[in-house]
Amino acid sequence: MITAVERVRAAYARIAQVDRPEMWIGLRPQADVEADAAGVDARAAAGERLPLAGTVFSVKGNIDVVGLPTTAACPGYAYEPEADAQTVARLKAAGAVVLGTTNLDQFATGLVGTRSPYGAVRNAIDPAYVSGGSSAGSAVSVALGIADFALGTDTAGSGRVPAAFNGIVGIKPTRGLVPTQGVVPACASLDCVTVFARTLLEAERALSVMAAPAGRDLPPLEQRRPGPWRIAVPGLEQLGELDKGWGEAFEAAALRLADAGAELLPVDLAPFTEAATMLYEGAFVAERYTAVGSFIDAHAGSEDLDPTVAGIISRARDIPAHRLYADQEKLASLRSRALASLGDADALLLPTAPGHPTIAEVAADPLGANARLGRFTNSTNLFDLAAVAVPAGEVKGRPFGVMLIGSAFTDERLAHIAQLLTAPPLRLAVVGAHLSGQPLNGQLLSLGGRLVRRTTTAPAYRLYALNTTPAKPGLVRAGAGGGAIEAEVWQLPAEGLGAFLAALPRPMALGSLELADGSFVTGFLCEPEAVEGARDITSFGGWRGYLATLPGPEAPPR
Amino acid sequence: MITAVERVRAAYARIAQVDRPEMWIGLRPQADVEADAAGVDARAAAGERLPLAGTVFSVKGNIDVVGLPTTAACPGYAYEPEADAQTVARLKAAGAVVLGTTNLDQFATGLVGTRSPYGAVRNAIDPAYVSGGSSAGSAVSVALGIADFALGTDTAGSGRVPAAFNGIVGIKPTRGLVPTQGVVPACASLDCVTVFARTLLEAERALSVMAAPAGRDLPPLEQRRPGPWRIAVPGLEQLGELDKGWGEAFEAAALRLADAGAELLPVDLAPFTEAATMLYEGAFVAERYTAVGSFIDAHAGSEDLDPTVAGIISRARDIPAHRLYADQEKLASLRSRALASLGDADALLLPTAPGHPTIAEVAADPLGANARLGRFTNSTNLFDLAAVAVPAGEVKGRPFGVMLIGSAFTDERLAHIAQLLTAPPLRLAVVGAHLSGQPLNGQLLSLGGRLVRRTTTAPAYRLYALNTTPAKPGLVRAGAGGGAIEAEVWQLPAEGLGAFLAALPRPMALGSLELADGSFVTGFLCEPEAVEGARDITSFGGWRGYLATLPGPEAPPR
Repeated sequence: MITAVERVRAAYARIAQVDRPEMWIGLRPQADVEADAAGVDARAAAGERLPLAGTVFSVKGNIDVVGLPTTAACPGYAYEPEADAQTVARLKAAGAVVLGTTNLDQFATGLVGTRSPYGAVRNAIDPAYVSGGSSAGSAVSVALGIADFALGTDTAGSGRVPAAFNGIVGIKPTRGLVPTQGVVPACASLDCVTVFARTLLEAERALSVMAAPAGRDLPPLEQRRPGPWRIAVPGLEQLGELDKGWGEAFEAAALRLADAGAELLPVDLAPFTEAATMLYEGAFVAERYTAVGSFIDAHAGSEDLDPTVAGIISRARDIPAHRLYADQEKLASLRSRALASLGDADALLLPTAPGHPTIAEVAADPLGANARLGRFTNSTNLFDLAAVAVPAGEVKGRPFGVMLIGSAFTDERLAHIAQLLTAPPLRLAVVGAHLSGQPLNGQLLSLGGRLVRRTTTAPAYRLYALNTTPAKPGLVRAGAGGGAIEAEVWQLPAEGLGAFLAALPRPMALGSLELADGSFVTGFLCEPEAVEGARDITSFGGWRGYLATLPGPEAPPR
Repeated sequence: MITAVERVRAAYARIAQVDRPEMWIGLRPQADVEADAAGVDARAAAGERLPLAGTVFSVKGNIDVVGLPTTAACPGYAYEPEADAQTVARLKAAGAVVLGTTNLDQFATGLVGTRSPYGAVRNAIDPAYVSGGSSAGSAVSVALGIADFALGTDTAGSGRVPAAFNGIVGIKPTRGLVPTQGVVPACASLDCVTVFARTLLEAERALSVMAAPAGRDLPPLEQRRPGPWRIAVPGLEQLGELDKGWGEAFEAAALRLADAGAELLPVDLAPFTEAATMLYEGAFVAERYTAVGSFIDAHAGSEDLDPTVAGIISRARDIPAHRLYADQEKLASLRSRALASLGDADALLLPTAPGHPTIAEVAADPLGANARLGRFTNSTNLFDLAAVAVPAGEVKGRPFGVMLIGSAFTDERLAHIAQLLTAPPLRLAVVGAHLSGQPLNGQLLSLGGRLVRRTTTAPAYRLYALNTTPAKPGLVRAGAGGGAIEAEVWQLPAEGLGAFLAALPRPMALGSLELADGSFVTGFLCEPEAVEGARDITSFGGWRGYLATLPGPEAPPR
């Protein structure tokens, strides 16, 4: 296994290679980070259990890391934190090493990644496009393969929009699941600490270290009726104007869920999109003034302030409290409508954003371009929901992403469903002891497998009765000299497939198997040496046909 | 049983007798109310189950009752409601009959009962003193024996302060337990509909009809560790300045709980009283502007507006939303401190108010006198707690009241504890089959009884062996010719005592029994005729002493 020190060296080599300095606000000197990593390697060598040993991460610049100024992307606001934010401390204790703090839309106010005196953060895949924000540098550092994971924050969508634009995973946990202590507040009552990673598994691993009950009682997860996942999917006509090709990409993602066995349900998106407009256009933006308004007023006109951000926050000073109460009432009513519209769906599937602007487009219309990006994300925290953003293919060579949104504390369920999109189920052809009713069929069922169809192989295989317990056949491709063998195609969820493969006993093997219709699927084959001297049973047309000719207990169940 | 029509006639006779017209805003014509009552009597005669048949109630003037204008004590604001408020409808459906709508501090803004163009509501017991408010007329209509119960509302203490000042019970349920639909909001996010009655039992009966899950998920009541009630009681030095004699009255109430077996715990009251000042002095008052601010602005200077109320609400117009967010954060932190201070206490005991001003005193200092009254009540709804206010004696001939405050949804538990104050436990001396280990002792245990002490009667009784099954002795006072008889003193909760007495078989009786120390307690005696011809067993010193001399199964367990 790679050591923490080796991992750090690889990260710094990659940092030099990609040459994206605007991604960082406080990149640590390599020697300091290597020293930390050496400490982790020593702890691991001493037998300490460190679930994140050998991983490196970056931290959004509005989260406290001891030794680096917390800037929130405003040089004049910077302070030297006396302690790590609780999340950072937990990750360090688990063996993860901090590379540095990353650039963001100032005071986490934006979804573009360009509102920063430290420079506009360019997209990881196409530098003419925005990175998305506000957790801009964090997302890019993961997408470019520098950090294994990164911390962001999410109030309006800052932990999800950059995930979508850079082709990575972004988890926005239920409010209160991850402590926000040590984070510069944007809207204190809405802010969440989020995590980016290239895979769901890595994101979940970091999250499990970050999450802990703090301030909010964690109820047990709601029970759901058994059955296939129920996913609410709005029709394209409800999504408003999308970038070209994004509607098709969204529908493809929905079909992928249906193909994996999910039930798709209709939903009324209106309460979600209506609430989304309230986040900046209503009174809620005043909470940003509570956080940093007096600082901004005291530094009006300073170069340290991003003019767009300063304008948004200082305009919020005069919003009256009575209007906030009115908005809170309206929000409560929209939330009731939204939850009613979701009904008993396990999750709502949405595009993470409606489109992806270039840096030039955002510069030409800083408020309008930004506002459009929050159409699907802005209401999530207002409604106290959980969300997972995952990549879902590409459009014109740039990433396209979708979100799964669910009730508070359904975080685990959302990750399970997201797995169907990131790791589609495997189709597996079986010809022997895994066939329905045969002794090993239970392995498939316990993995959550389901029978997709009964067919035969292409007429190109020979089947042998092997000398194994339980009795199994061996399938070997024989080309023109072969026959068509009875086969079943099963669909297996990606989870647990690794363990299934690892447990496969010799001489069985998995390979590509040709079916009667000429298509290829993964299927059970056999090491050739095992069939030497074994009885050729091709003529029986399959394992069941052969078994039926045997006397006694070997006969298949009817 | 009295009919609903008879009950209504009695109520109107009493209304005429007390001559307190300022109590009402919309007193209904007697004929209309009698017609409603006749309908109830007919429904009951037809066999309909009507738990509140034969009761009459009054409704605070900010709650919708069809046929009466909803005024909120502002004539110009009045509207004719199209439907009853949900609570009123439920009570009517259960057979209760509405007498009319009552006077209040305008827009439910006040704790005095004098802020109304319909007149200052005089105290039920001493008309020179305020009734308390804002649910002024409702409380007085109950205290004067006109209504069986009445509806109030409570944001800052409006359902509790008038209960204390008029010597009645006021229950302020957990927010969301009783629907506020059809109520003119004061602070919509805090308002609760409350109930007044002369006894806890009557208040609970009405509340059970009013309460129903609506809008808020009702979790099961928290489990508590078995054991005596744990009551947090602040020291007098934490209560600030109280009216003369109120500190002693408060301590007496606490002692009464201790005497009934409760464990008294210390508590830090600072977070409660600090939050209390935030309700009017902070940004939360802006919610009153959201409710009726535009009406008040449009009618500035009108005689319909109470000048004190109009001033409070119109000044709230300019409170900025960013200050509200800051207050909400501060409140969340005070709430955490308050809950930590309560620890695992079942309830917090507080005086309902710090004192009771005269109408003249309030007129001289409308804001100051009112602000003082909310010292203990203002924080309850801000902290999302439940409360029950009950009478606890008198000071200088006027009622003194205390509150029990507990976590959301501990309403039932609070009522149980309040019962200890309103109906203190009975001490009962037993001398025969109810002694520990004897056949009927289980009756005491199943009532929640506990053994207080073992003693003997004064040397003035004679004990006889009666011819009953199970075998029992009969105790008869004999004056100088008697002996001292073994006795146990048990403490029994007031609940269920009625059933116990009703089941008492002849010739047993309960009367006043003199103990060895010369004190008197309720104790088991015997009808004299039963002892005629019975064996005198006084010389054995008690029932156990006698049983020990008998052979066989009658011997007492050792």
